[in-house]
Amino acid sequence: MRTIEWAEEAGAVKLIDQTLLPRECRVVACKTVSGLVDAIKKLRVRGAPALGAAGAFGVVLACKNEKTEAGVKEAVELLKKARPTAVNLSYGVERALNAALLGRTAREREERALAEARRIAEEDVAANKKIGEFGSELLEDGDVVLTHCNAGRLACVDWGTALGVVRSAVAAGKRVEVIACETRPLNQGSRLTAWELLQDGIPVTLISDSASASLMRAGKVDKVLVGADRVVKEGVLNKIGTYSHAVAAKEHGIPFFVAAPLTSFDLERSYREVEIEERSAEELIFFGGEQVAPLEVRVFNPAFDFTPFELVAAVVTEEGVKWTRRKKS
Amino acid sequence: MRTIEWAEEAGAVKLIDQTLLPRECRVVACKTVSGLVDAIKKLRVRGAPALGAAGAFGVVLACKNEKTEAGVKEAVELLKKARPTAVNLSYGVERALNAALLGRTAREREERALAEARRIAEEDVAANKKIGEFGSELLEDGDVVLTHCNAGRLACVDWGTALGVVRSAVAAGKRVEVIACETRPLNQGSRLTAWELLQDGIPVTLISDSASASLMRAGKVDKVLVGADRVVKEGVLNKIGTYSHAVAAKEHGIPFFVAAPLTSFDLERSYREVEIEERSAEELIFFGGEQVAPLEVRVFNPAFDFTPFELVAAVVTEEGVKWTRRKKS
Repeated sequence: MRTIEWAEEAGAVKLIDQTLLPRECRVVACKTVSGLVDAIKKLRVRGAPALGAAGAFGVVLACKNEKTEAGVKEAVELLKKARPTAVNLSYGVERALNAALLGRTAREREERALAEARRIAEEDVAANKKIGEFGSELLEDGDVVLTHCNAGRLACVDWGTALGVVRSAVAAGKRVEVIACETRPLNQGSRLTAWELLQDGIPVTLISDSASASLMRAGKVDKVLVGADRVVKEGVLNKIGTYSHAVAAKEHGIPFFVAAPLTSFDLERSYREVEIEERSAEELIFFGGEQVAPLEVRVFNPAFDFTPFELVAAVVTEEGVKWTRRKKS
Repeated sequence: MRTIEWAEEAGAVKLIDQTLLPRECRVVACKTVSGLVDAIKKLRVRGAPALGAAGAFGVVLACKNEKTEAGVKEAVELLKKARPTAVNLSYGVERALNAALLGRTAREREERALAEARRIAEEDVAANKKIGEFGSELLEDGDVVLTHCNAGRLACVDWGTALGVVRSAVAAGKRVEVIACETRPLNQGSRLTAWELLQDGIPVTLISDSASASLMRAGKVDKVLVGADRVVKEGVLNKIGTYSHAVAAKEHGIPFFVAAPLTSFDLERSYREVEIEERSAEELIFFGGEQVAPLEVRVFNPAFDFTPFELVAAVVTEEGVKWTRRKKS
């Protein structure tokens, strides 16, 4: 199934619970906005494009459960704020809400929100396929591509952004291998990227995040390719660690590419105006049930970092490849 | 107690089991060479200087349990090879073995090995104190120092190399804060560095390894200070991830310092001749009891990386501060 979709019969949002991967691929249903907000905060569904769809489907839930316009508007406020950094979430909510509010009855609002949410989901898949097509031109036969976090089909409705590019290149007959950085502290690289690439039979090697620079130095990385939570006027906000790979790529003359749909773009805004989500200390103090740091230690745990365009060779969108600096020949 | 010492009454090597920290500070006794080899392989004792003492005390165990010279020599071969990258282990073994072989009886060999092992341990503590004295000149009041892995008293017999410098600076009245990178995959930063600094009341903040570059970009890091597993002719071998911090420090104009006793030096050798220990895939696939990656994923898990001197501002030894390039003014 898709990462997230509307379950007609259940009147619910169905999503793959990504916190259980790779051990179990379980689909959970959210019937209320608060259930969906909880799923978003706990990262059962995550990834900027998937959050866009989640926001839109969440509006459908609000329309279903709230009988007044005011009730719907109030319910979706919580949803919009469930996570602050990816712009897609509020984009999805607002688009579906605007569609819903054209309806005169609760029933009409729900129908309009659902139609719009489905459109957003379809557009996301179509955008990813175009990103894949354009982006695959950047990859050559035999390339080893380092990626961070999960910008795959689990981060989107389907196909993926960064991993969508890899999938499209492989579909075009190129041999491409992926190096997946585990992506601390929540290990989306180990849990999700490794899992979905293995499902597709694409060769993948897992490394610790801080091993990337030494692999680059050893000549074992041809390209770096990541997604984006928000593209702002000076660069890209993405999972914490992205910037460290970009700096290392610069040091070693390795092209650093970003793949993201236009729904992740927020070019009017500076990165300084965007809230970088800080997550709980527990993510670093515990691992699963195990305590790995003193309980009283101070922790700084930002979920995202900022990479300026100076370090980005090109950004791939559904409209094509936009080079931000000249390609090294 | 010290990280490692000889327990006269038990006729055993006593060491703090570092795999149980920070939850429990338990001292274990090794009465046989194979028990000690197992403790080294499982990282119950780790850190280049501590491994030097472990190797030497291991020779005492060999002399105690093997009645012939040939038996002693055979037993210590396993010990020397328990871990390949830090030069201190074989240094400690060889020094104690040479001393032992001057004895004519098993009893004499044991006594001579023990005297030499104790000398090595005392010399390590004295070297660390000198490193601390010299190195503390590099730190200014108010500095925030980023470190990787654990180059503290738990990595040595006592005091520490990189953290010894911090301790000496604090003892000299400077306010110094430490940013500890968790140091995947075995989290020596979270488990050991955070723990020992909290014990001493030195302010410490824990981050994920890949957050270091973005903290540097935000101006939150004044210096980087790490230990070394082996200093070779072109640079420094140290815990995987060290190189990524060095590259990021260069990008942001932040001085990168290495603190190591001369026992870690192997200047005749190139880093290309040194075996970089590759550890098991399980370290990345599991965390404690929890599976965090697909069982069938390919893993690359080197324990160390190489940082060339071009990225190192200075190396601090017990003989002083050796600048490898001009200090930025």
